[in-house]
Amino acid sequence: MEYIQQNFNVNFSYGVFFSSNLFDPANTCLATFLESKAEDAYVKKLLVILDGGVAAHHPQLTQQISRYFEQVRGFQLAPEIITIPGGEGVKNDLPLLFSLVDAIDKYGIDRHSYVIGVGGGSLLDLVGFAAAISHRGVKHIRIPTTVLSQNDSGVGVKNGVNYKGKKNFLGSFAPPAAVFNDPVFLTTLDSRDWRSGMVEAVKVALIKDAAFFNRIEADSVALTAGDMAAMHYLIYRCAELHVQHIGGAGDPFESGSSRPLDFGHWSAHKLEQLTNFELRHGEAVSIGIAVDSVYSYLLGWLSESDMQRILTVLKNMQLPVWHPLLEKQNGQPSPVVAGLEEFREHLGGRLTISLLREVGKGEEVHEMDLDLLYKAVEICKNNQ
Amino acid sequence: MEYIQQNFNVNFSYGVFFSSNLFDPANTCLATFLESKAEDAYVKKLLVILDGGVAAHHPQLTQQISRYFEQVRGFQLAPEIITIPGGEGVKNDLPLLFSLVDAIDKYGIDRHSYVIGVGGGSLLDLVGFAAAISHRGVKHIRIPTTVLSQNDSGVGVKNGVNYKGKKNFLGSFAPPAAVFNDPVFLTTLDSRDWRSGMVEAVKVALIKDAAFFNRIEADSVALTAGDMAAMHYLIYRCAELHVQHIGGAGDPFESGSSRPLDFGHWSAHKLEQLTNFELRHGEAVSIGIAVDSVYSYLLGWLSESDMQRILTVLKNMQLPVWHPLLEKQNGQPSPVVAGLEEFREHLGGRLTISLLREVGKGEEVHEMDLDLLYKAVEICKNNQ
Repeated sequence: MEYIQQNFNVNFSYGVFFSSNLFDPANTCLATFLESKAEDAYVKKLLVILDGGVAAHHPQLTQQISRYFEQVRGFQLAPEIITIPGGEGVKNDLPLLFSLVDAIDKYGIDRHSYVIGVGGGSLLDLVGFAAAISHRGVKHIRIPTTVLSQNDSGVGVKNGVNYKGKKNFLGSFAPPAAVFNDPVFLTTLDSRDWRSGMVEAVKVALIKDAAFFNRIEADSVALTAGDMAAMHYLIYRCAELHVQHIGGAGDPFESGSSRPLDFGHWSAHKLEQLTNFELRHGEAVSIGIAVDSVYSYLLGWLSESDMQRILTVLKNMQLPVWHPLLEKQNGQPSPVVAGLEEFREHLGGRLTISLLREVGKGEEVHEMDLDLLYKAVEICKNNQ
Repeated sequence: MEYIQQNFNVNFSYGVFFSSNLFDPANTCLATFLESKAEDAYVKKLLVILDGGVAAHHPQLTQQISRYFEQVRGFQLAPEIITIPGGEGVKNDLPLLFSLVDAIDKYGIDRHSYVIGVGGGSLLDLVGFAAAISHRGVKHIRIPTTVLSQNDSGVGVKNGVNYKGKKNFLGSFAPPAAVFNDPVFLTTLDSRDWRSGMVEAVKVALIKDAAFFNRIEADSVALTAGDMAAMHYLIYRCAELHVQHIGGAGDPFESGSSRPLDFGHWSAHKLEQLTNFELRHGEAVSIGIAVDSVYSYLLGWLSESDMQRILTVLKNMQLPVWHPLLEKQNGQPSPVVAGLEEFREHLGGRLTISLLREVGKGEEVHEMDLDLLYKAVEICKNNQ
């Protein structure tokens, strides 16, 4: 038998920038980044896909964006800024995905040009996927506008859309060219989005950084009340921990079954789907963290007081810690619990669930004791 | 301005195996590969997508495949082997793409399981793309069954489908888990596929390996007549040069504009599209190589005798070296020549065309002199 071995590495590198009023003509952060990529030989193109909700809250934004890019040397903005809705619904809309692909074609966005998504995590997931599959991958820049996307998905390497009711069934790993986090967008979030977005910080603190959890705990009431300085720290540290994990844990494209950043997510994904996305992602993850923290306590890993601290932080953020779909329904298994196999399938390989050995230290298990799980659900119910 | 830097490498590694009668129970090549990936904790799944033309020429194949995988420890074959047509047509069929995605879902193919494509390059492009976008990428194994796919696309890292008449507009870079080249499949190819597939070897020899070109030249009549030993060497060396270029030239996912393996391809892609794929890919590339070789001669790069050698090799393979669509049409530019901009856009960045400095040495230019190009077309026409 003859044999040829292929072996190569691909480097992925991008910056996550924090800067206020990105499209203010005096703010050179984005312009400087782009101009560092300019080429004398040809003009690169830019296509902006903007969240309609953001545009409504910032009525000057479209015009600001157009004017801003006029000044950037070596780049040309497409004649249209495409406005689409925000929220999870856009991830259920394949014709919308293809309309973005069509726009990439129509406006001549090639592999050296950039698609720029401005919006929440769902919009960025959709835009990232459209960019990833067009011309075998055109570059994309993310400008996340929510707490959730600035501290988590927006700084990561994934994209995706839902397919036939399965969350993120279609998608890819396609790191962005750059991410720009602008806190000004957070000022117009509604309270639900502001609060629920913090839960990914609670998650990553619990599995990786006890000191960060202590700080979130101390700040939890102020954060919930809208303290911007506290929120800025929360987002920065959360983004940093996500970036470090993705780049530093040896499996950025998740070829293994280990997925510590999915702590609290196995039940969350199913709850979102079963509630038809009436639960926000962050709310569903709050419930998932609560259940898996109590389960960790019942396993004898987490102390009762630490378990209570976690529930208190989530409740201080006015986030849910329980949902009726977690219970058995007329003697039948909870439909959320029944989704464990679907979660395993999406991750692939062996069932792998992150739990808490202690605050700041995640640990994985490969099976869940269902009696213990229903007991954890009961404790969450009684601790709402 | 605060800033977080992300930076990581992803390793991609796969073998290209050459082995006859892959699905003979006595052939352990594929089984050994799979069993090296088995896990005690769970059974991995396999889904085979088979080219209907191959199935028709090898009526026992479906049954052979089923039986073969029954013996492989740690793996379970999906209850259905999916048979789809071969040929470029499948790349124009988005519903077919989604039917494969549906099968990946239905049969529980997760990120640790494998989709196995058995067929020509078009089928493998389609299957690879379906695998790449499902669950953010499930593993795929390629078993190319044509000369063209065994020596070129099947051993590479790309996939793709056509979209709104644009070749490979949708696709991604997703290296296979492994490639298995079985020469037995070549024995049932029709003459046109047998001959036209050789042109990618002519291409890569011309830009990289003069000794290989000399050997192809010496063998060209025998190859065309069906000499299997000569064909085996041609495929092996061509695959090796492609693998080495992809892994060794520093840009496996084509982030730059340099694309030497696309020698002869700018006009070929357009010719395929304009003839509604009545021209085979290899035939179109034969024409493309002829035109760009003559153009290289007219630039003063290639000697007249080397230019003639190239045309003679292509003609010995009974491949076309000219097409009427290359000429001006009623005083209007040739629609192929008008496709230069489309080619630039697909590659992105600056127009970059590979030409021949000499036999065995490609060199890139960033513009084409259209008068010279039409002169090259004329010489090709007169040398058919």
